[in-house]
Amino acid sequence: MEKVLSDYLHFLRFASVSADPSQEYAVIACAEWLADYLSQIGLDVESWETSGYPVIFATNGPPNPKLPTVLLYGHYDVQPTDPLDEWKSPPFEPRMDDGEIYARGAQDNKGQIFYTITAIAQLLKEKGSLPVNLKLLIEGEEEVKSTGLAGILDQRKEQLKADYLLIVDVEIIDAKTPAVTLGARGMASMTVELRGSRTDLHSGFHGGIVYNPNHALVELLAKLRKENGEVAVPGFYDDVKELSEEEKKLIDLSFDPESYRRNFGAEPTGGEKDRSPAESQTLRPTLEINGLAGGYAGPGFKTVIPAKAVAKISCRLVPNQEPGKIERLVADFLKANCPPGIEISVTPIGGGKAVQASPHSRLAQIASEAYTELFGNPCRFIYAGGSIPVTAGLVQASGAELAFIGMGVSTDNIHAPNEHFGWDRFWMGVKLIQSILQRL
Amino acid sequence: MEKVLSDYLHFLRFASVSADPSQEYAVIACAEWLADYLSQIGLDVESWETSGYPVIFATNGPPNPKLPTVLLYGHYDVQPTDPLDEWKSPPFEPRMDDGEIYARGAQDNKGQIFYTITAIAQLLKEKGSLPVNLKLLIEGEEEVKSTGLAGILDQRKEQLKADYLLIVDVEIIDAKTPAVTLGARGMASMTVELRGSRTDLHSGFHGGIVYNPNHALVELLAKLRKENGEVAVPGFYDDVKELSEEEKKLIDLSFDPESYRRNFGAEPTGGEKDRSPAESQTLRPTLEINGLAGGYAGPGFKTVIPAKAVAKISCRLVPNQEPGKIERLVADFLKANCPPGIEISVTPIGGGKAVQASPHSRLAQIASEAYTELFGNPCRFIYAGGSIPVTAGLVQASGAELAFIGMGVSTDNIHAPNEHFGWDRFWMGVKLIQSILQRL
Repeated sequence: MEKVLSDYLHFLRFASVSADPSQEYAVIACAEWLADYLSQIGLDVESWETSGYPVIFATNGPPNPKLPTVLLYGHYDVQPTDPLDEWKSPPFEPRMDDGEIYARGAQDNKGQIFYTITAIAQLLKEKGSLPVNLKLLIEGEEEVKSTGLAGILDQRKEQLKADYLLIVDVEIIDAKTPAVTLGARGMASMTVELRGSRTDLHSGFHGGIVYNPNHALVELLAKLRKENGEVAVPGFYDDVKELSEEEKKLIDLSFDPESYRRNFGAEPTGGEKDRSPAESQTLRPTLEINGLAGGYAGPGFKTVIPAKAVAKISCRLVPNQEPGKIERLVADFLKANCPPGIEISVTPIGGGKAVQASPHSRLAQIASEAYTELFGNPCRFIYAGGSIPVTAGLVQASGAELAFIGMGVSTDNIHAPNEHFGWDRFWMGVKLIQSILQRL
Repeated sequence: MEKVLSDYLHFLRFASVSADPSQEYAVIACAEWLADYLSQIGLDVESWETSGYPVIFATNGPPNPKLPTVLLYGHYDVQPTDPLDEWKSPPFEPRMDDGEIYARGAQDNKGQIFYTITAIAQLLKEKGSLPVNLKLLIEGEEEVKSTGLAGILDQRKEQLKADYLLIVDVEIIDAKTPAVTLGARGMASMTVELRGSRTDLHSGFHGGIVYNPNHALVELLAKLRKENGEVAVPGFYDDVKELSEEEKKLIDLSFDPESYRRNFGAEPTGGEKDRSPAESQTLRPTLEINGLAGGYAGPGFKTVIPAKAVAKISCRLVPNQEPGKIERLVADFLKANCPPGIEISVTPIGGGKAVQASPHSRLAQIASEAYTELFGNPCRFIYAGGSIPVTAGLVQASGAELAFIGMGVSTDNIHAPNEHFGWDRFWMGVKLIQSILQRL
């Protein structure tokens, strides 16, 4: 256990922020360390070149035709760390406090993929072999839309063929209540830039003449949502396929506003007025402004009218919605509503389609049994609000049955300051992976 | 001339950004250098302590009751430098290119105050004395609302008493067309912070539940202005005193959209629809968003719902408007319109009242004559769109007649990347100061 902890902390120390070009060295060093680690536990490892960061692919030797083939997916890249000043300790200097490991990536996804690796390493060490043909796929661009991996799926199709695809990158309901995740939302994302002048201007001399890009931006973005919380872009909901009442019954749609308030210091006031929070969270498409920047918002004050203002927007999509179509609809809406004197550019950043698996599949049933036994508490089926953009492509390339599993809980602060993961849940994860592999 | 250039460049090398606490050392070093420099040219120098950065006050010895007393005002602090990546050379490494000196502060206000100092130094050197009782006041917080100087005006009232007050911190119409500035707008400014949750949240899991502070911010700020360009805050225009038609005739209200487009790469589409650009620019109050920040808007993408979003807002005010009242009106409007689930805080940053001087005063007439002779081109009267917040307090403390003079032009990029000032205009400024002092 001490050796596992020390290796896990080593893994967390790489600042593998795929979104930040200045961390390129750290991302690559992380991939190399990981490949080496997987070799050492006895796997055959390949590092696949992509347009971006390498994909690490590991197997337990030539396939045994009598055994099922399982493709396990995770990623070694992590989210950026800002706002850095809200971290209680440096994000790449992991520390254990009260049974929780604090670090960027502690859960998402280094923690989850490392208990997966540990489960495999233990089985190999104790039994000398695995009960499945293993294909372990760990990429380095999940947090930047998996562009590299998506670009080589066709070319690697043969190697990716599998009976079962397990995405080990999701949450359960809470630390006591397990769940198999059957779907994840898709994503469309873009950068919007408004420009009003060649350079920044003085707000005394130019206030009341030039159209301030900050004003243009807030006026434009305010039009994206209606008072009732719906997205106002025409056609946005056209392709949304609603779940049937029978399907809705199979899944858990509970939501406790009191614990939401306690856990996040937030009120659940942001969704569509005629949908429940759990429905809004997982079964409805959304449009969120993830970033705003224009002029000077730091300490003190700067009386500037900025030359440009920028927003980052992402939409979560549900099955049947096409990311490219949604990007176009949003971009067209923004361009049509841009005020005079302002130049607009909208740059798509990439995305992926939503995926939905069946609760009746063999994989979903086995994962559910493994969870139920491990927790001593009935496993539920849920949908994830988040996105793992490459999933749809992986399903297609592998031809496999899909399920999402994990040991995350909603208070792990992933994508936020002070991300953490429970050391107890890490070892529950080891057992979960082993139990599923043995049942398949 | 070489010595003057070298001293001016030395002055520009101090990164005296009063808005940035991390530059405290540079601001203070700049003040000390300046005090020492003024001593060396033969003035009696005092450094006045304030709640913030020191005010440098220099005189030419005990007053001669037969001579008029002139208070000259400028500042040694400068604006922040971001966006830094749009500077063609580092902002605090001044360079001369094609007769222009490029640096933060090259014009505003180090360039303008340094030709003033040079004019005085030359007169002292050549004639041994000045034709006036000089009071030179150079503060270090003009760019952050002059809080320090404003706080000691009462206490320094006796020392500030003067017949004439010249604010050397404005622009002329263009490099060939001089103008005396008769008024400057006032200012009210504030920071608005919206908070939706305790920490940043993942937009997959929380999108469609929490009210994203970025959305709350754009929706709220979009309400501040009407479609016709008017400020929508109730009561905002209540105290505005319009100029009479006769007053309007005395001042230059020309505006050339073509040269505006050429100079700034901007269209004049931002003002009130039923006012001319020149009127909007100088005689009408404005409300501008000077800064926006929320979430992650840097390279790559971060699927975050930020815990908070921030805006910086400033209003330019015209005579008769009270900064405190305008701050309250705007804050009340924002609070009343803040959506459910979002906590709002509005923090006033400070401001100042607008000032307006008479075109018929002796000082305005003398400055006009000096400009006309120097340029060989009739001098006009204008109002400035900008603000020098402490002016109203200085007029009151000094009991002096007021005029604003300067050698800036609108293409100097003050408060913007690549600020610059013409070396020829620097020497015109030296002559202007000398000519005015000799005529008084």
